Amino acid sequence: MRRQITGFSNPTVKDLRALREKKHRKASGQFLAEGLRLLTDALACGHVPQVLVMSTQRESHPLLNALETAVNAAGGEVIETSPDILSKITGKDNPQGVAGVFAEFDTSMAGLDRSSAPIWLVAQALRDPGNLGTMLRTGDAVGAGGLILLDDCADPFSVEAVRASMGAVFTQKIAQARWEDFLPWLRGGAGQLVAASLRDAVPYRGAPYQTPCFVLVGNESRGLPLEYEAACDLRVTMPMKGRADSLNAAVAAAVLAYEVLASLEA
Amino acid sequence: MRRQITGFSNPTVKDLRALREKKHRKASGQFLAEGLRLLTDALACGHVPQVLVMSTQRESHPLLNALETAVNAAGGEVIETSPDILSKITGKDNPQGVAGVFAEFDTSMAGLDRSSAPIWLVAQALRDPGNLGTMLRTGDAVGAGGLILLDDCADPFSVEAVRASMGAVFTQKIAQARWEDFLPWLRGGAGQLVAASLRDAVPYRGAPYQTPCFVLVGNESRGLPLEYEAACDLRVTMPMKGRADSLNAAVAAAVLAYEVLASLEA
Repeated sequence: MRRQITGFSNPTVKDLRALREKKHRKASGQFLAEGLRLLTDALACGHVPQVLVMSTQRESHPLLNALETAVNAAGGEVIETSPDILSKITGKDNPQGVAGVFAEFDTSMAGLDRSSAPIWLVAQALRDPGNLGTMLRTGDAVGAGGLILLDDCADPFSVEAVRASMGAVFTQKIAQARWEDFLPWLRGGAGQLVAASLRDAVPYRGAPYQTPCFVLVGNESRGLPLEYEAACDLRVTMPMKGRADSLNAAVAAAVLAYEVLASLEA
Repeated sequence: MRRQITGFSNPTVKDLRALREKKHRKASGQFLAEGLRLLTDALACGHVPQVLVMSTQRESHPLLNALETAVNAAGGEVIETSPDILSKITGKDNPQGVAGVFAEFDTSMAGLDRSSAPIWLVAQALRDPGNLGTMLRTGDAVGAGGLILLDDCADPFSVEAVRASMGAVFTQKIAQARWEDFLPWLRGGAGQLVAASLRDAVPYRGAPYQTPCFVLVGNESRGLPLEYEAACDLRVTMPMKGRADSLNAAVAAAVLAYEVLASLEA
């Protein structure tokens, strides 16, 4: 069963488009993801869209058929609409031929099993959704269990974060916590907290990483609060050969996470 | 001598704001950079703004005085205006207290001395200005000589790229070339071309890197053309433990460049 939507002023278009705003996502408990590859990854991880929106100008593809079948089987809705309307919904000039609406996941720390992966990424007050999505993507690549967002971070379910994650929003666990709740949780079990830092730090290369290793990066402008750095088990520093004294947060997380991976596997 | 601008409709405001568009940057040969830290880095690298724009609500700072003195000494213009107008010019809600207009640099390959650095970053058809700026920032950190932009890349002088570079747009050489011009140039001297690749690749860790090492990453969606990969001296691959088969382009460049740095310094 496909519902056709031909008008920009259709209330469903308005509702879907509203998911680009955080308050509407929180109100409905839903978020948007685009693209056949990403939606297929979602399905493979057990996430069936509640609503599947397809462009009338999509190319036919067996994976798209599989998606439609899954959505129908789960009692979801399939909508067919013009590329222009899809573009209005996702806010992208050249929209992919398909988008999906998903239920937001539980992001409490309770759902997090630290023993399930050797590496976990942790970000504090990360404000850029692109950086957040990129960290999810990196986490997937290094075999991390997930991304823990401390304090006031960008919304992991924003269109920009989901897009930058390239599907890793579905493969990585995502947890949100305040520092004062995270630290007792961390200390309630095994886990080494490692920060990229300039203070009292050892070279990141060859540092004594231990599993499960929690790789912590701070806010894009301010870095980590001193108190957070002090609470880390290990502070490591990357060479900075030029005038700058820091890396992009997502880059720092990746360089460090790949070093941890190599170290743990050596 | 400071000129006061109080009206949004002032033609100078219109001209400065127009520098956020590529066609106006190319027509005037100028670009915008914001922030005291960034402008101070520029000055230290010998780049004096042609126009310095200061907010009436800036905090006074000796570095800002030094900037103003340098601009006046070079016959440039100093403008004082409201935070609202500065915000209109730079397109940022909370503008930094100062912005500068700079002459675009020469980006021909002719200005590039390969022997001046052990590492060079190379990007092919990189479309995201944030990724481009991040690569400049990473290049500064690993002691690269500069960033070579192949084929149709984002504009390194866009406000977004300059912002993401965190000043590295002034410390790194930037060159723009077509592949068919770059390759003969590269082969006209020493230089190892290394691509992050999945095809016919060796592990990036412990690969035989040589100086000067040119680290090549491809377009965000399509990666590198096969022909470009085939022309590389070395193809290396990073572990991909999850569902994704690639990293963000700026992340891939950074992980690889840090490995090259460690290898060359070992």
